Amino acid sequence: MLNKQETMQVALKLAIKAYRHGEVPVGAVVVKDGMIVSTGYNSRESKKNAIWHAEMIAIDKACKKLRSWRLNDCELFVTLEPCMMCIGACANARIKKVYFGAYSNDSKLKDVPSISILNHNVNLEGGIYQKECENLIKKFFEERRNVKN
Amino acid sequence: MLNKQETMQVALKLAIKAYRHGEVPVGAVVVKDGMIVSTGYNSRESKKNAIWHAEMIAIDKACKKLRSWRLNDCELFVTLEPCMMCIGACANARIKKVYFGAYSNDSKLKDVPSISILNHNVNLEGGIYQKECENLIKKFFEERRNVKN
Repeated sequence: MLNKQETMQVALKLAIKAYRHGEVPVGAVVVKDGMIVSTGYNSRESKKNAIWHAEMIAIDKACKKLRSWRLNDCELFVTLEPCMMCIGACANARIKKVYFGAYSNDSKLKDVPSISILNHNVNLEGGIYQKECENLIKKFFEERRNVKN
Repeated sequence: MLNKQETMQVALKLAIKAYRHGEVPVGAVVVKDGMIVSTGYNSRESKKNAIWHAEMIAIDKACKKLRSWRLNDCELFVTLEPCMMCIGACANARIKKVYFGAYSNDSKLKDVPSISILNHNVNLEGGIYQKECENLIKKFFEERRNVKN
C-alpha cells in the first residue's frame, strides 16, 4: 500500500524518464486501493501523437488491465495539472480523484476541490511534491531555451 | 474534394457502424484540404476503454498517418458535439476547426464560435445534418431503454 507521497514519487520518476527522452517531463500513475494499476509518461514527441500525454497512457493501460472503461475506485496521480483532454478522460473513465504536483502556468484548477463533467464528479488535490515537479519542468524549458539561443 | 455536407455524411455512416456494434452511435472524420485523412467510430464498449471515442480514434490515426502530433490545417467532423476530452484533444493536435452534427443534451458549445485552449483556437460549427445525427442517437437510446424495460 503506497501513500500519496510515495505514489507521487513514482510519478516523478516517470516524469524524469520522459525528461530523458526529450519530452515535457510529466509522469502519471493509476492506483486502486493503494496499489499501482498502471503508469505512463508523456510520449507526445516520441510517438508523434497529440493524445499520448502521461495520463492518457496510464488510463489506456489501466482500462486494458482491468478490462473495463470504468476505472471505478481508481485514482490518478500526475506530476503536472492535467490539460482539458486529460481531465476529460479522467471523468470519462470515472476516476474518482486526481492528485497532481505542479500547477500549470494558466492553472484552471487552483483551489478547485472537484470538477463535475457529464454527471461524474472528479475530486482534485494539487500541490503534492509541488516544488520537485515544478523544478523538473522549469529545468526542461530552461534547457530548451538555452539550446535555441 | 468533399464539401461539409459530404464529409458529415461519411461521419454519419461511421456512426451507423458504431450503432451496429452496440456503441453510442458517433462517427468522426479528419480532413485536410477537403481530403479524408482518417476516420473513427466510437469503440468504448468493444475496446472496453474510456478513451476510444470516435474523435480520439480519428485523431490517433491522423497523427500516425501524417507522422506528427501537429495536425495543422486539419479539420474534424463528428456527428455529436465533442466531450471535454475530445475537444481538448483537438486543441492539443492543433486542429483548426471542428464541425459537429447533433448538440449534446447538456451542450456547452451552443452558439460558441470558437474555444481557446492553451493558446490554440479551435473554431466550431454545430448543426450539420443535425436531425439525422440526433435521430440516430435517439433511436439508440430508445432501443436501449426498451431492452431494459
